[in-house]
Amino acid sequence: MPAMTFSATAEAADGLTTRCTARGMTITIDEPPSLGGTDQGMNPVEALLAALASCKSIVARAFARKHGIALRSVRVDCEGVLDPDGFLGRNPEAKIGYSEIETIYHIEADNTPEEIAAFVEFIEGNCPVDDTLTNTPKLIYRIV
Amino acid sequence: MPAMTFSATAEAADGLTTRCTARGMTITIDEPPSLGGTDQGMNPVEALLAALASCKSIVARAFARKHGIALRSVRVDCEGVLDPDGFLGRNPEAKIGYSEIETIYHIEADNTPEEIAAFVEFIEGNCPVDDTLTNTPKLIYRIV
Repeated sequence: MPAMTFSATAEAADGLTTRCTARGMTITIDEPPSLGGTDQGMNPVEALLAALASCKSIVARAFARKHGIALRSVRVDCEGVLDPDGFLGRNPEAKIGYSEIETIYHIEADNTPEEIAAFVEFIEGNCPVDDTLTNTPKLIYRIV
Repeated sequence: MPAMTFSATAEAADGLTTRCTARGMTITIDEPPSLGGTDQGMNPVEALLAALASCKSIVARAFARKHGIALRSVRVDCEGVLDPDGFLGRNPEAKIGYSEIETIYHIEADNTPEEIAAFVEFIEGNCPVDDTLTNTPKLIYRIV
């Protein structure tokens, strides 16, 4: 399969509300009032965690059978720590984005803990969103 | 402001469909049929681009006035290149996630091109999602 190009567009709406579209499907992003928004949707750093958690969940379901995992249920939580004083410009020492992200796997399967642990290790190494965080892609921009 | 913890939960639904929730707000993630899903929503790597594009759009609107930018409109597109043969296990040489992500800024403002370029440079350096990609956070996981 040749390399694919994926894309998303962010259109500004009222205030900080943002309509994001990819292949005709839309999600609404906003900020909570404490960060200047009106809570019309999760915010970008929460959407990043949702992308990461959903990617791991999908890898789990797509590859369970191949790895001999009899998956009964899977839930993936992601939690990230971020100091808003960074992007708010209040502390030049603070990191702008997340300093730490933890993934918590809730997996029920008819397998041993060791088999589940090995499968989670596979998921961690085979998740496109996790890899994009771990191994930074070439990031470029242009103004049109 | 102390460091904040953000979180998102991915609950498995039918097939590869995934319900992601953060602070009670939900987005649906899925895959296209070509990748085993039923197109109930954008997929995780598109959601990652949506998070990135929306973050830059929000930084633009939140900081325009402070930077003397008379913003009339802003649209941010993000495009990422990914070789599915990586995560599909068909090519061990292929990167699992994005190899390149390009951001395209469409900005209308009552400012010179130089002022807009300087402002975009600020956005690029002050976007929490971009920073999380550029400067990899500590990534950990646990199984419960």
